[in-house]
Order: sequence, then structure tokens, then C-alpha cells
Amino acid sequence: MISKQQQKYIQSLHNKKYRTEYGEFLVEGEKGLDELLASDFEVVRLFCSEEFSAGRSLSGHPRVHEAIIAPVSAIAAVSTFKSNSAGVAVVKQKRPSPPQNFEKVTLILDQIHDPGNLGTVIRLADWYGIRNVVCSPETVEFYNPKVISATMGSFTRVNVFYTPLPAFLHRFGLPVYGADLEGANVHHHDFEEKIGLVIGSESHGISPEVAALLKARITIPRIGTAESLNAAMATGIILDNIFRGV
Amino acid sequence: MISKQQQKYIQSLHNKKYRTEYGEFLVEGEKGLDELLASDFEVVRLFCSEEFSAGRSLSGHPRVHEAIIAPVSAIAAVSTFKSNSAGVAVVKQKRPSPPQNFEKVTLILDQIHDPGNLGTVIRLADWYGIRNVVCSPETVEFYNPKVISATMGSFTRVNVFYTPLPAFLHRFGLPVYGADLEGANVHHHDFEEKIGLVIGSESHGISPEVAALLKARITIPRIGTAESLNAAMATGIILDNIFRGV
Repeated sequence: MISKQQQKYIQSLHNKKYRTEYGEFLVEGEKGLDELLASDFEVVRLFCSEEFSAGRSLSGHPRVHEAIIAPVSAIAAVSTFKSNSAGVAVVKQKRPSPPQNFEKVTLILDQIHDPGNLGTVIRLADWYGIRNVVCSPETVEFYNPKVISATMGSFTRVNVFYTPLPAFLHRFGLPVYGADLEGANVHHHDFEEKIGLVIGSESHGISPEVAALLKARITIPRIGTAESLNAAMATGIILDNIFRGV
Repeated sequence: MISKQQQKYIQSLHNKKYRTEYGEFLVEGEKGLDELLASDFEVVRLFCSEEFSAGRSLSGHPRVHEAIIAPVSAIAAVSTFKSNSAGVAVVKQKRPSPPQNFEKVTLILDQIHDPGNLGTVIRLADWYGIRNVVCSPETVEFYNPKVISATMGSFTRVNVFYTPLPAFLHRFGLPVYGADLEGANVHHHDFEEKIGLVIGSESHGISPEVAALLKARITIPRIGTAESLNAAMATGIILDNIFRGV
């Protein structure tokens, strides 16, 4: 059962205002919940279906404070998903740590506004073993349910840190490249052992303050006619180029 | 103005049933409309804002049968977009032509269900100059407003054809590769001059009847931990590999 009060509480976490106020967020659906249970996030309360609960030992789980079995209809009613027959978890937000020990690629997001794009970039980071994603303060919130959902569980393995980018880049000390339609062909570029890669906003590209700090701009060769590629798609194709031969 | 009757008609085209019955579909928003006006699609009726109309010579347009200025609030009310201050066009569907004169890559979609994925793949096809996308009959409908929107105007330049894939592949006569997590590393693969590339469904991959007709399976090397990449993302990264050095 999900009480009226619990229902209201979960629904309040659909909104950024309450997520920030309570320091909590939602993880929804089977894939997200399974990755959550395998992570070190603290689960304040897990509402899940009989079926989801059946295959998993939730009662003995060290980081699930309370697990409540609920009918699928009640889960669907509080979920942001169109359909959700697994469950919804209320989870404690973590304090993100400033990125340290920079590895091969540090992803730097300059005002990415679309939650699907941020989530997809986090999933890509996880695919390529990138630990750190640094976001400008204007970038969409990491704990947005659409971001969490689009990561397909990868939110548990990537450190997403928000900070003003110009100051960060001044401290960063490694060569930084920017994805830009006017850049040099990424197919013909040799990258240094460790770099930063900036992805600009969907509508305005990389902001001038950040652009001024780039070593170079790179682009994906276009053979046809489309005006552009989506920001997350461009990130994926460029990462695949950077990780060639690694 | 948009009359009540016109409003009802536009809204009926949100549904596949009526799109198919009327042989029409919707194009929405500034980018889609601009690409539409530059294409050879027949625009039955264009409802647009004063502002959108102002910069464009709509009255003399040879393929816009009727252009009606409407308030932004009325446009937003009939649009499937969250916000739309440009307009909505009712457009005649085209009879797709069976792909001929196969070029470097023919994309083959085996039960892609997500409209955003199909739209993104069409945009990618347009970026890489691929004319033909062949879809299994179960693939999401090309004229779905979410597909059209995700193409960012590329729906005007790519021929999307639905046909049962096993029979198509028997006729196709060129080597066909499939994107598959268990495939060979795409970074180390040399492709023939002309090929087919199959992308399988988001949840079940390539169907057995299609898999049986592949020359080989290829994959994108994973360095980190994410279980998979999204189908459209995998398409983009593999295409970039195929078009290297072209």
C-alpha cells in the first residue's frame, strides 16, 4: 500500500523545488531500481510490486531502509513513467565530489537543457568508462526524473558535478576540445592522453567564455544535408573517435 | 483563426488511425515547417503565427494550398509540441518508393518502436547522405508526430520504406551487417563499398529470421560498465565508422 501522504510526498519529488528542499530524488522502473540496489545510494523507501520484490532479497538489503509492497496501479499513479510495473524508490541525494584524478576524458557540459540529452551523455560516459561529467550551473538538474531514467542506471556510476565552467577550466590544466560544427575533422585528429571535451547547448553551442579556453574545435564530418546532429549523438560519435585504439 | 472544425481535424491527425484514413500528417514548429516549405511535400493547410508568416512568402508558395494566420495560443492548443509559436501544417502523405540504386549504406530497421529513435535515425541518415531507410512493418509509423519532430526536418530528404525484412534481404544482394552487443569490434572492420546495416529493436535486438541473413555482427567497443547504448546512438557511432575515409 501507498498511503495518501506517501503518495503526496512521492509526487512532490517530481518537482525540483522539493527534491532540493528534501535532498531526495526518485528512481523508477526495473532497470533503474536494479542498478540502484547494486549501488551505494541510500534508499529511504522503496515502493515495489509483488513481482519485483519476489526475485530480490529486499528485506535484508543494507541500504534499503524500508520496502513496501504496493499494487501496480498505485505505483503507476505516483510514477513519472507512462508505464511502471516495477516500483518507485525515494533515494537520498549524494553530495557530488569535485572531480579529481582526471582520466582519459573529462566531459564538460555547457548549458545542456534537455534532460534526455544529459541522461544519454551520462550513459555514454558510463559506456566509455568516464568517471567525471562537469556541468555548467545552467545545465539541467542531474536528479530530474527524466535524466535519471535516460541514464538507464548509469547515474549510479558517474560523478556529475556542477560548477561555473570558466573557473573550472582555468584550474583543469589539460587540453580542452569543443564539439562545434565549424571545427576540424575528428577523424583526422590525434588527441593527447588526457583531455577535456566540451559539449555546448542544444540551441546556442558553446558559450563565448568557454570557447575562449578551448585548445581546438572538432566536428564530425557531414556527408549529407542535415543541419546538425543532436548534442548527445555528437558526444557519442566524438567519444568513439577519442577511444579508438585505446 | 482556427475554426472549431479545423481544430478537431488537426487533433484527429495526432492519431495514426486518422492519419492513415486521411492520408495526411502534421508538421510542427519552425524548423520542421521551414524544411517542409523547401521540400516537394504538398501542404494542404498551414496554420501559422503572424511572426512566422512575416519572414516568408507563403501566399505565392506553389505547394501551400492555403495559409491561415492564427494566434500563438490557438496554434499551441492544436500542436503536439509543449510549446509551438510558429505553426502547424496539414501535409499530404507521400507514397514511399521501394529503394533502388542502393548507395554506400542502406539502413534496415528491425522493429524500432520508439518514435524518438526512428526520428533520430532518419536525421542521422540525412547527415550521412543515406537515401534509403527500410523498416520492418512493426517499426513505429514514419508519420507519427514524434518521429517527424525528432528528424528535425530530415523527414523531407530520406525515403523510409516499410516491408517485411526477410524477403527484402533476399532480394537485396549486398552484404548486410547487424549491430549487436556480441559482434566484432567495428573499429577493426573494413566494410565493402555498399552494404546494408540492420539495427534491431530496443528490447529484443535483431529478430532470428533477419539475424540468419547477416554477413556478420558488429559492435562498438565498450570500455566502461553501461549494459548497452541506445539503438539510435549505436546507429550513429557505427555509421561514423563506416563513413571514415569516404
